[in-house]
Amino acid sequence: MREILIVGAGKSTSVLINYLLEQADKEDLFLRIGDINIENAKKACNNHPKCEAFELDVFKAESREPAIKKADIIISMLPARFHIEVAQDCLKFGKNMVTASYISDQMQELDEEVKAKGLVFMNEIGVDPGIDHMSAMQVIDRIRDKGGKILLFESFTGGLVAPESDNNLWNYKFTWNPRNVVVAGQGGVAEFIQEGKYKYIPYQRLFRRTEFLEIEGHGRFEGYANRNSLKYQSIYGLDDVLTLYRGTIRKVGFSRAWNMFVQLGMTDDSFSMEDSENMSYRDFINSFLPYSPSDSVELKVRHNLKIDQDDIMWEKLIELDLFNPNKNIGIKNATPAQALQKILMDKWSLSHDDKDMIVMYHKFGYELNGERKQIDSTMVHKGEDQSKTAMAKTVGLPVAMATIMILNDEIKTPGVQLPIRKEVYEPLLSKLEEYNIKFEEKETEYLGYNPFGEVGN
Amino acid sequence: MREILIVGAGKSTSVLINYLLEQADKEDLFLRIGDINIENAKKACNNHPKCEAFELDVFKAESREPAIKKADIIISMLPARFHIEVAQDCLKFGKNMVTASYISDQMQELDEEVKAKGLVFMNEIGVDPGIDHMSAMQVIDRIRDKGGKILLFESFTGGLVAPESDNNLWNYKFTWNPRNVVVAGQGGVAEFIQEGKYKYIPYQRLFRRTEFLEIEGHGRFEGYANRNSLKYQSIYGLDDVLTLYRGTIRKVGFSRAWNMFVQLGMTDDSFSMEDSENMSYRDFINSFLPYSPSDSVELKVRHNLKIDQDDIMWEKLIELDLFNPNKNIGIKNATPAQALQKILMDKWSLSHDDKDMIVMYHKFGYELNGERKQIDSTMVHKGEDQSKTAMAKTVGLPVAMATIMILNDEIKTPGVQLPIRKEVYEPLLSKLEEYNIKFEEKETEYLGYNPFGEVGN
Repeated sequence: MREILIVGAGKSTSVLINYLLEQADKEDLFLRIGDINIENAKKACNNHPKCEAFELDVFKAESREPAIKKADIIISMLPARFHIEVAQDCLKFGKNMVTASYISDQMQELDEEVKAKGLVFMNEIGVDPGIDHMSAMQVIDRIRDKGGKILLFESFTGGLVAPESDNNLWNYKFTWNPRNVVVAGQGGVAEFIQEGKYKYIPYQRLFRRTEFLEIEGHGRFEGYANRNSLKYQSIYGLDDVLTLYRGTIRKVGFSRAWNMFVQLGMTDDSFSMEDSENMSYRDFINSFLPYSPSDSVELKVRHNLKIDQDDIMWEKLIELDLFNPNKNIGIKNATPAQALQKILMDKWSLSHDDKDMIVMYHKFGYELNGERKQIDSTMVHKGEDQSKTAMAKTVGLPVAMATIMILNDEIKTPGVQLPIRKEVYEPLLSKLEEYNIKFEEKETEYLGYNPFGEVGN
Repeated sequence: MREILIVGAGKSTSVLINYLLEQADKEDLFLRIGDINIENAKKACNNHPKCEAFELDVFKAESREPAIKKADIIISMLPARFHIEVAQDCLKFGKNMVTASYISDQMQELDEEVKAKGLVFMNEIGVDPGIDHMSAMQVIDRIRDKGGKILLFESFTGGLVAPESDNNLWNYKFTWNPRNVVVAGQGGVAEFIQEGKYKYIPYQRLFRRTEFLEIEGHGRFEGYANRNSLKYQSIYGLDDVLTLYRGTIRKVGFSRAWNMFVQLGMTDDSFSMEDSENMSYRDFINSFLPYSPSDSVELKVRHNLKIDQDDIMWEKLIELDLFNPNKNIGIKNATPAQALQKILMDKWSLSHDDKDMIVMYHKFGYELNGERKQIDSTMVHKGEDQSKTAMAKTVGLPVAMATIMILNDEIKTPGVQLPIRKEVYEPLLSKLEEYNIKFEEKETEYLGYNPFGEVGN
């Protein structure tokens, strides 16, 4: 039997674990699930005969080392910053490992040693990052194999609420870490390339410079720019590309409304507010408005943000109960972002029957035999229930599949890897199709960012 | 003779040095001026018999220590971050010292040792910080001495161009460090108190939430909030104050126009732009605008910032020659803030005959014998010529005067000090009046932030 050690058994791991247990007989697997809270691990095992739960404290060598030494491969589902503890032991004991997280600088530094030992440390193999890499590289490589040259690559991903559960004015609910949504776009300018020109969007304009995306059968979406569009330029081999843009997908209208919070300063995560614990929702919003005893908080917001009385923006604020003087933030030393997250979680948390939805949209512009063409590739995947969410599936399945492929020597290129090689994406994307995670391709006219001719700006 | 060591002889020190040389005979002074460039020091001495120029490298102990040991008192006119080198030697050799800079944490840490040795390290004794502390504390102490209670304190300062030299549409020229103007307001939220309520203004709203200030004979100004309004709350003894606000003064209309740069992202100092060296002014502004081959950069700016064709905002941009495709930024790895500074220095540098002007405005609201009252105190001081600028005078004179007062034992409270005590501000403000640096006071009705009654918001 091949022993897989899973470090960390949070809620998001259920699909991952179920997949591995389903494959346990056929693939001759045994799972050991270690968590700081053994109850989490037990629940994840669910009395399956091929699964063992145990208490694991990743910061204690005496707890971590024997477990890693004993396993054949290790999946770390810890928060990204803790992977390095696991990775160092994997190196020490000669074990392969898998994570769904971005490759940190610390992780990258291990690359040479990992290669020297012939190990595979596969990272960024969830949904975003993960399925985005694989589905993009599949098309990029196919175009290149035919002799084509990539001119444009745009890639958008969003975790949304499914239409059947979409019952608020923002067309949004939290389907993953709410904090990431509240602070999205902070900490640096959004930088990208359009038709050979570097473009920069500061945070205060980010949610007003969106692009529209249309997906047949699913309607219209919008995308705002990510900060790190250029991060994968060299990794994807796109050094000469004219347009390179990565973004986040929301339903149309979300960004314009979210910009109200940005403008007022309510998404700021850099300072603690005075007496935030006893602050009402109304006090919270009022602290970003000028003092005026003769005007209501409501009128001050409308005036400050220039919201007409019949503007849907206003209804969106009202829906959040932002002006309630009787609901309290109740968090000590809260930053504005933490207070806002509290308010939004009242309204944007998934209900028991709600379903989520992952949307991905790639555009590939290219030149082949003197002709310019474009392929648009889209993927929409809905969750089934509270545990088989689209997010848990699109993260958990690729991680589980890659783990078995490494055990079976199907993925074997050594080093600190991300899934951009054919040996990974071809079989893995086929397997995902069996789970209805698949891309629709459409050939379109190459528009790029230059629809009207050659005049550059 | 008492020997004064001046460390650093930049352009801003001429008024300081001239004042000390004028007093040299009467006060029995000898000046030693040390600079890394001895020519600067020689020029400052101007062959005066009571002055000696020498080369001083503040980072070399063998250069610094003998000079400090030999002097009776040391004035450090270095950039603020270098004072600590001088301060540690002053402590070692038992010398008093004077700076015009904010007290750094490092400097504050020396307080106990400085007190133990009975030394005076006087800081923040320029104009802002400096004259603002002194003029505010004089009125605050006077109100308190009568039994009054301070309810409101607002304080604004601005370094502007004098009306006779004010010949651009922005009503602004650089009269001090241009970099500080370009990055003003960055690095944290503006926090203050209005009628007992904490208020926060994020950077993206800072230049749209200004207050108007009227000074008889000088017209209308505007003020935007400083980040550190609460910094002096305890130092001034204002822990129970209802309103506390510090701001920066500009001519009306500056902030609204400056906000265009903020919104586009052109003041950002956190990242370097690609190929900034060869970027034209037009390329620079275009990098903050969406790509569109069918529209001019001009139209994209108008549309993005919603500037009507007859809006003076537009003329202000044109005046800066921002759309010029033939002028280059010419700075390697420039941040947007550095590039913008370059563009502005073309237009906003003082000409040879230009005069500058310092404007200060304090409001003191208080309760005395059951009555609420307000005192507005204003100071406007114009420069005389290129070397006797208002800025150089209002910084240099208090530093020079405080130095002599310490030598004469008139200022003697030991420790790391700032000028908030009567022993300092009473004599010093009188001496400044002889140089026409004086405040006009006006009693007004107490308006505070609550003009219409008691309904709080």
